[in-house]
Amino acid sequence: MELKIRLLKWGAGKPIALLNNELADRLNIHVRDRVIIKRKEKNIIAVVDISHGFLKKDEIGATKEVWEHLKCKAGDLVDIMIAPKPESVLAISKKLRCEPLDNKEIYGIIKDIVSNALTEAEIAFFVSGVYKCGMSIDEIVYMIKALVETGETLELKNSMVADKHGIGGIPGNRTTPIVIPICASAGLIMPKTSSRAITSAAGTADVIETICRIDFNIEEIKRIIDKTNACMVWGGALGLAPGDDRIIQIERLLNLDPEPQLLASIMSKKISVGSRYVLIDIPYGPTAKVPENRAFGLREKFKILGKRFGMIIETFLSKATGPIGNGIGPILEMRDVLSVLDNNGPEDLEDKSLKLAGKLLEMTKKAKKGNGIEVARSILRSGQAYDKFEEIINAQKGRIKKLHEGRFSYDVMAQKDCKLVEIDNKKLNTLARIAGSPIDKGAGIYLWKNKGDKIRKDASILTLYSESRHKLNDAIRFLKILNPTKVC
Amino acid sequence: MELKIRLLKWGAGKPIALLNNELADRLNIHVRDRVIIKRKEKNIIAVVDISHGFLKKDEIGATKEVWEHLKCKAGDLVDIMIAPKPESVLAISKKLRCEPLDNKEIYGIIKDIVSNALTEAEIAFFVSGVYKCGMSIDEIVYMIKALVETGETLELKNSMVADKHGIGGIPGNRTTPIVIPICASAGLIMPKTSSRAITSAAGTADVIETICRIDFNIEEIKRIIDKTNACMVWGGALGLAPGDDRIIQIERLLNLDPEPQLLASIMSKKISVGSRYVLIDIPYGPTAKVPENRAFGLREKFKILGKRFGMIIETFLSKATGPIGNGIGPILEMRDVLSVLDNNGPEDLEDKSLKLAGKLLEMTKKAKKGNGIEVARSILRSGQAYDKFEEIINAQKGRIKKLHEGRFSYDVMAQKDCKLVEIDNKKLNTLARIAGSPIDKGAGIYLWKNKGDKIRKDASILTLYSESRHKLNDAIRFLKILNPTKVC
Repeated sequence: MELKIRLLKWGAGKPIALLNNELADRLNIHVRDRVIIKRKEKNIIAVVDISHGFLKKDEIGATKEVWEHLKCKAGDLVDIMIAPKPESVLAISKKLRCEPLDNKEIYGIIKDIVSNALTEAEIAFFVSGVYKCGMSIDEIVYMIKALVETGETLELKNSMVADKHGIGGIPGNRTTPIVIPICASAGLIMPKTSSRAITSAAGTADVIETICRIDFNIEEIKRIIDKTNACMVWGGALGLAPGDDRIIQIERLLNLDPEPQLLASIMSKKISVGSRYVLIDIPYGPTAKVPENRAFGLREKFKILGKRFGMIIETFLSKATGPIGNGIGPILEMRDVLSVLDNNGPEDLEDKSLKLAGKLLEMTKKAKKGNGIEVARSILRSGQAYDKFEEIINAQKGRIKKLHEGRFSYDVMAQKDCKLVEIDNKKLNTLARIAGSPIDKGAGIYLWKNKGDKIRKDASILTLYSESRHKLNDAIRFLKILNPTKVC
Repeated sequence: MELKIRLLKWGAGKPIALLNNELADRLNIHVRDRVIIKRKEKNIIAVVDISHGFLKKDEIGATKEVWEHLKCKAGDLVDIMIAPKPESVLAISKKLRCEPLDNKEIYGIIKDIVSNALTEAEIAFFVSGVYKCGMSIDEIVYMIKALVETGETLELKNSMVADKHGIGGIPGNRTTPIVIPICASAGLIMPKTSSRAITSAAGTADVIETICRIDFNIEEIKRIIDKTNACMVWGGALGLAPGDDRIIQIERLLNLDPEPQLLASIMSKKISVGSRYVLIDIPYGPTAKVPENRAFGLREKFKILGKRFGMIIETFLSKATGPIGNGIGPILEMRDVLSVLDNNGPEDLEDKSLKLAGKLLEMTKKAKKGNGIEVARSILRSGQAYDKFEEIINAQKGRIKKLHEGRFSYDVMAQKDCKLVEIDNKKLNTLARIAGSPIDKGAGIYLWKNKGDKIRKDASILTLYSESRHKLNDAIRFLKILNPTKVC
């Protein structure tokens, strides 16, 4: 059917076609359907949006991606027809019926996810299939390969490429900016990419961003690593395993995190940057992301996958009780990090960072078995780690500076002599987000006490920080509803 | 965070906000996320689209629905924040874990689907849950109630409201335009709404549209029924159980049709128009929509649901072998219908229509038990049905006229004396669609023979019709690949 094209003056990152609602009804085309738009010898597949009252019945609106590709002028005639579904839809149906997929089928799905050929709803069906039916180790291996192959990769000459990865959910726990400079000082190559917060108060990328840039391309990262042995950047725009990012976007609609996808996600990112030695930090417990009964199974699967890809993977399992460090929120966490690097920081954060760094040094034979923590500690104590951190931050166009928490604050104090009995990680995350974290860098929570600590009457348990009075008031209101800490 | 608003000159049927891609990265907002947009005391939830190179980082684009609601001028400052997920997302997670839902939870999901508060991906998760876990009769009942309550309803005074519904998949099989005038002649009230084709060659609505209008609102339908006892209209824009339409849009991405949804879909539409007597036509077989092993279970469930809603529901099960009638495609099928009404039509189509009409007349006591077909036949033979049909078509602003099949045609002939052994319904549907059906009204297939018929050498088996030479050539090419009929 022939339609006159109207050129929309914007790009959507993928081809979108806008149709008049009555025309769409008549053609039985719905939002998110795909149409083939043809002009002369060229054609393109676009996703449909429906417009009410903007287009005439013989018109089609098209984003920049469409009209640039078709080389159209306003008013040109184009032919449209309903596009056939991508073949990978059949493989998705198979997975939803719990039938195993082969390498080719999984590759097809991931390729179509990356090229925007599958809609969000179709990806949701795939995620549902993986969630309900699981995946064999073979399927997970195919998925990892497909995720890596459809994305960018970082090629480094040095083979001592190591990485750590934390399976999130614990507020604070900002060990990365401490582990990376310690290990890089010892000669390991640490191309660290991190994510922003999804549901937590702050992601490592949000925290690093308080003092330097985090958005670099692959070439720039190479130069930073050449200079400093390491980087600490945001992984989001690098195009490493982009299929994984798309899948995670859909999963988080329902806070789903099926284990096969969790494994494939971490493995694909690490393989994409060329890591040979990987340490996975798995905090587990009732308020962590991983419940206790899943933690040991995860360890086994990481081992198996490590073997399949010729990598040395170890896991660090620890029972999560409360936050690690005192600050929750980008600036508050960065201040904890700087204190530790300055040999003056929260003990629990230092302790955990040294354990992780120590293990990595042993895995890579930079320290003898049993001696890793000592080596790591001496690098920290000597100031080498601080200097390396500063070197990396400078290479990332930043500098170490004084950081200010939010201007508006509220103290929660003990009513009587008491003990801090319980801390709920998920509730602290929620509260910090209500206060403005991670968008407002200075917003968040400072915890004055750890679980089990004694508290005197009128002593502070925690302080809420916010950059606006309004958000602080919201947080105070929710504090009373959520009650994230239990005393006595 | 404050942004300057840019007014997009179009409506999308729901509020959409366009964000600069770099801003979205920084805020960790993705396509299909929802944001709350605030201006002064007003606020609205919008779905996010991402724009590349059209907006500045401090701008937000908004469709008509947004800026009309907020009463914005171009350049006004608005505040945005990430919207909390609708509560119904929790119920969807529950269903995906195979936990049963209660009335309130199901109502919440359907209400949020209807109000566009749930994204396509979230609806896909719900569909996946229903598909993998099924639904109890109670859950189906809650779903039906919710679908009806969140939509429009047709209120008719007369209590003899009856309806037929065919579970599709069989090409031709256009019994509706014959059954309706027969039953309406006998005094039944038949508010018939039909759909357009989804995967088949033509839907009843596509066929009726060849001779009259099918897009009326509820008030207009009432007037048509007052005048003629019946209507034959498109259900799509009436707003009857609109949640069902949205769910079907998502299901068809994967051609899923979970039984609970099939039941809820049909029941909700019938209850919305106030039907008390409903006959469900269930053709079953390997190339029909319903396989044999599901047909009898469906019958039982319809009975149970009928009781729960105080309706009289019967089912008409028949083993589907090939198409009913000779024509496949809107005009070709309407010509079959007119021939039957003129007592000159394909025998199989007349036969099936009389059986369905007869059963409805018996259910409603318009005919004695065992006598329904006879009563129906005499209404057809006397010309009453034809006159009633014409009356309805005239009330729907149309008239009976000569209809022309597509200008371009291609005959498939027998190579030798032979027999028609097999007809594949799905392949015929595909072929008719390639030829242009249902958008090109004259496109489709005319079948000269039924399954089992003897065919002489050089006699026609079928004729392909198309409105363009190009589409005819496509169809001829696919004819050879698909091979929808087997001879000898």
